[in-house]
Parts: sequence; C-alpha cells; structure tokens
Amino acid sequence: MEKIYTYEQLYTFSTAVFEKIGCSKKDADIAAKTLLSADIRGVDSHGVARLSGYIRLWEVQRVNATPKITITHETPSTAVVDGDAGLGLVVAPYAMQVAIDKAKNVGTGWVSVKNSNHFGIAGYHAMMALPHDMIGIAMTNASALVAPTFSVERMLGTNPIAVAIPAGTEPAFVADFATTTAANGKLEILQRKNADAPTGWIQTKEGRSSTNANELKNGGSLLPLGGDREHSSHKGYALGAIVDIFSAVLSGANYGPWVPPFPAYVPMPENMPGEGIGHFFGAMRIDAFRTAEEFKQHMDNWIKRFRSAKTVAGEEKVIIPGDPEREMEAERMKEGIPLVNAVAEDLQALAQRFSLVFS
Amino acid sequence: MEKIYTYEQLYTFSTAVFEKIGCSKKDADIAAKTLLSADIRGVDSHGVARLSGYIRLWEVQRVNATPKITITHETPSTAVVDGDAGLGLVVAPYAMQVAIDKAKNVGTGWVSVKNSNHFGIAGYHAMMALPHDMIGIAMTNASALVAPTFSVERMLGTNPIAVAIPAGTEPAFVADFATTTAANGKLEILQRKNADAPTGWIQTKEGRSSTNANELKNGGSLLPLGGDREHSSHKGYALGAIVDIFSAVLSGANYGPWVPPFPAYVPMPENMPGEGIGHFFGAMRIDAFRTAEEFKQHMDNWIKRFRSAKTVAGEEKVIIPGDPEREMEAERMKEGIPLVNAVAEDLQALAQRFSLVFS
Repeated sequence: MEKIYTYEQLYTFSTAVFEKIGCSKKDADIAAKTLLSADIRGVDSHGVARLSGYIRLWEVQRVNATPKITITHETPSTAVVDGDAGLGLVVAPYAMQVAIDKAKNVGTGWVSVKNSNHFGIAGYHAMMALPHDMIGIAMTNASALVAPTFSVERMLGTNPIAVAIPAGTEPAFVADFATTTAANGKLEILQRKNADAPTGWIQTKEGRSSTNANELKNGGSLLPLGGDREHSSHKGYALGAIVDIFSAVLSGANYGPWVPPFPAYVPMPENMPGEGIGHFFGAMRIDAFRTAEEFKQHMDNWIKRFRSAKTVAGEEKVIIPGDPEREMEAERMKEGIPLVNAVAEDLQALAQRFSLVFS
Repeated sequence: MEKIYTYEQLYTFSTAVFEKIGCSKKDADIAAKTLLSADIRGVDSHGVARLSGYIRLWEVQRVNATPKITITHETPSTAVVDGDAGLGLVVAPYAMQVAIDKAKNVGTGWVSVKNSNHFGIAGYHAMMALPHDMIGIAMTNASALVAPTFSVERMLGTNPIAVAIPAGTEPAFVADFATTTAANGKLEILQRKNADAPTGWIQTKEGRSSTNANELKNGGSLLPLGGDREHSSHKGYALGAIVDIFSAVLSGANYGPWVPPFPAYVPMPENMPGEGIGHFFGAMRIDAFRTAEEFKQHMDNWIKRFRSAKTVAGEEKVIIPGDPEREMEAERMKEGIPLVNAVAEDLQALAQRFSLVFS
C-alpha cells in the first residue's frame, strides 16, 4: 500500500523536522534537499525512509545538529574537512563546494572528509559540479556489511561511487552505484516481498552462497561486485577498498570494520581508529583539459552512439548512466512521490513527536 | 612447453628491438622496463608476448618510434599530453611523471593523454607515484571487445583501472584490473587449454550467455564486470565508460567503438573522432591530506586487519590487492620468467628479422 506525496509536502516536513532538532534554517534546507534528491530520483532506500534514522542518531548524540564544519588541512588542489559530527546531508555539500572552489582556481579539487555521518545519495553531490562545467566525483564509506573475497567477516560497507559528467544537448552522464553486486536497498525490496535473492548477492556466515534475502540477519554478508572469485569479486572488493581508503584513511575517519553503524541501536565498534565516517569528493574543470564546448560535443557524440547501439532481442535501447533516475525525477516532480505505508507511518510518528503535521 | 629466461635476457633483447625500430636509447630502456613489468608481475598477456605486436604497429606506421611528446594544454593541477603516436610504453611514463610533478606543486596532478598506443599494464604507471609518497592512478581505453548491458555491439575496451597506495611497513596496496568480468588474457589461457569459460564472462553475437572461450571469433563480446543485469553488469559498464571518457573524451583521443585495434592487420574504424588511444593518470600527494607518517600507520593497520579477516573454509587468508603480483615478482626475479613456446618463437622471429640473438 502506498500514498502519494508532493515534493513540496515532503520538503516542508523534512525541513521542519531538521529545524526541530536544532539545525539552522539554512542547514535544514540543505539537509532536506539532499535527502529528497534520493526520493525524486527513485532511490527510495536513501530518502525520507531514513529520516527517522537520522533523528535517532541525533538522539544518541552521534549527530551534531549545529556543527562547526572546518578545513583542517589544505593545498591549492586538496583539503581535509572535519564535519564535526554533523549530518552528512549538510557536511557533504559543504565539502563538495570546497572541491568545486579549488577546481575554479587550479583546475581540480579533491576533498577527503572525516567525522561525518551518512550523506544520502552520492550522485547528488557529484552532480553539484555539473552547472560549473566540471566533472563531479563523490564516494563514501559505510558500516561493514560486505565480505571481501575469501572472507566470512564483514569488512567493508556498500561504499558507493558517483561520477557526473556534463554533456551538451544530451543530458549529463551520471553513474552512481554501490561497489557490491546488489545495494542493500534491493535486498530490502525482496525482504518486503518475501522473495529469494539471485545467487551472487549474498553469502551465509560460513561463506556459502545464499539466496535468502534475510541472510544478513543470520550473520551473512553482502558480496562485492562480481559475486564470487570466478566472476572477479576481487575487483568489487578492490573498488570498495579504494573508496574506504580515499574516504577515511586519507582523512582520519574510521575505516573497514570500524565504520559506525547507521542504526542508532547498534553498538559502536571497539577500538575505533578515527572519527565518524568518511567521504571523498572530486571536481575537475572541463576546460582544464579542453574547451567545454569541444568536450560537450564529443560527450553528445559518445552518448548518442552508445544509446543507439544494437540491442539484444527484447531490449529497447542501451541505457546511459543516469537515464532512469532522470526519467524518474521528471515523473515524480509531476505525479508525486509514492511512500509505502511503513515509511508514511514513520513520518507520522516523527510529526507527533515534534508537534508537526504530516498527512 | 616453456623455457625460462632471466629478466636481464628479456630486458636486453627488448631494448635492442626497440632501438632497431629507431627508438632512442633512453626510450628503448623505458619501453623495455614498462613492457617487462608485466612479465615479472605475472601478467603474461601484457609483456614480451606483445612485443611483436608493437613492432607490427610500427611497420604499418601506427607507432612513431621518435615521437615529440608535448603538453598541449595545462593548469596547475592538470594537463593534456599529445603522445605523437609514440609507444604507449613511453608516452604513459612521461604523462605519469607530469602528474607527479604537478602533485609536488599543488597537491595533486591529473593528466589525460591522446594520440597514444597500448601502454602495457596500468599498475606499472600507478606505482610510479609510490616512491614519492603519493597515491597513483592509471587507466586507459582500448579497442572495443565489451558489450554494455543490453547491447550486442562491442562498444568498450577492457578499460583497466589501477590504483597504487603507499603503506608503511606493509607492502603497498596495488589494485590493477580490467573493468570486465574477465580480462582477455584469461580467455586466452582457456583457449590454449581448449577449456570452457564460466558463464558471465562472454556472450554470443546475439547477446546470449556463452561458455565458448572462442566466442569472440564468432562476433561475440566480453561482458562488463557483473556479467548480466541481475548481477549489476551496468556497474561494470559504467566503470568502463568512465575510463573511456576520462581517457579519451577529456583528451581528444578516440573513444567507444572508434578506439584503434591492437592487431595491426585489423582495419581502423571509420569516421574516427579523435587521435590514437587515450589514457588518464592521477597523482595525489599523501601530505596534501595528512602527514605521510600518520597515513602509512593507518594503511598498515588497514592492511593487517583485512589480511587477518576470518576466511571461508579452505582459504588461507584474505588477499590484499597487489599481494599475488608482488610475490610473483620476487619469484621471477630469482627463478626467471617462463615463456610458452609460441612466445619464445615469436621473439626468435624478431631476432632473425633484426639480426639480433635470442636464445
């Protein structure tokens, strides 16, 4: 069962909730926009469905609603940002803006972030670069759910990578993906349907292949992109590891199995080596390489050629990364955003708690 | 059947061959070292097995033995390098050095390269950053063998990504992988053994799953990392696409299905939009983020924790990217490099042609 809400309704409500926990008007606006970018792009697992989760982190004092975000170290093309335990939804746009400003000055900007929290969808931050005729890159580590090749221990998060690349008359190329075979959100959909997962997504706590969508509750793990060794899961593991190191070992955040969990009721890992979770952002000015006009003409050519590639029988066209999310955004801005009952009830509970209205 | 050669034997011979086609002493040395880094690290498909292939490209005037490699555009943190159709084995180390020099000045350096040729193994170039306490990144596009998700056309090369990250007392983290489920070299091994390939590696020319290791000869394609849509091949496709765009659309090289083929007898694509093949390099100074000492201590901690993760039954340990290649290098520098007969004969034919000795 679902009910449809407008973007405006969800934005107004989310902003009000963030203000209720003490965020400034400006931060509440940024946090709500970042959060809702997931809902409008169809990444339902990362949008308002997580709002109550963020609030619970604030309740246990793991989220600071009034952070003093600072640059602790920098060079002309780099910076380390300390998020002061702020909402990742606010810290990440700040850090991405630092990357963009540095790119304006010296061609590129690269920012590693410590002491942050969950930042919503990576693609939103990467796309901040597009209006500046820059390529945007965003990644983050996350609490460990993924077993590297040959491991039965969960050592890495789903550690997503997003890359946004401007085009001319064609829409931008926007890739945004977890470095696992399947993102956790896809498992949650199967759990709700009581359906099996394909092989190659998850393993049991002993490291055997499993199709049980609830296997993580039994101590199992998600698998890196590739699934098993024969299908090059060591590559997905390497990608997740690179995201972890760029986001956290470079900045001084927690890494590997020490990344703080998103659910506030899960105890923190012992002997944590850093502060909070880590992100990594990059911005590259197109005209630091060639004129933006030339580049965009060739990107249009690239996109048109790939989109018109001959397809397997039954498939209409080859998809350019970002196409489905952009189409979803157009639809949801017009038709509204459907929320499943559980999420709507979650928001109603928040409304009651903060004396707000949500209907 | 195999025969064992010392590194010195293969280096001396390769250098002599490169000098015979007109390379300067210095370029011949660089090219031979780059080429042989594949043989010593166990990537047999990318080492001296390709030497005659490079020479055939020179014969058809697609490789220029005396290139004037130039920087055509730059900012403090970026450059575009024109390889002047030189050997990628020479152009790539030049460009990576530009990235390193820029990182010395402004924290990071990013170089996109056009008008180049096959550059050997990506890992070698990325590892150039390590002695400078920098993270190194290298990628390249390659001629199209890979069908994006839903495509039956070959649109991308195996487009590898390498990332080298310094550590302290532990050896460096060095990931170097094709963005396909299986690199072409792995298929070649199966072809020699007349063995079947696992599912998820290749498809037929109609886009059906195939286990025929010779399927590419029938018009089939390699598959992006992930294999099929259910196992997130769209992520491998996006990774290959990002490598293609960074390497070629940023620089002005050929991209997608227009990348020149490595075998000299294969006709060039029509209506090529750029010059030669493209590469992309990055160097990030560790102390542009935090002190190299602190970083390396945490990298050691990262590596030790991952290497000691609990394994599935029957597996000794979790592998850190770069472990197998480093162990192979130690072994082959001591015990020598085995070449299969076909490769040894290929080198003997080159020796005869250039009045050199190879035995």
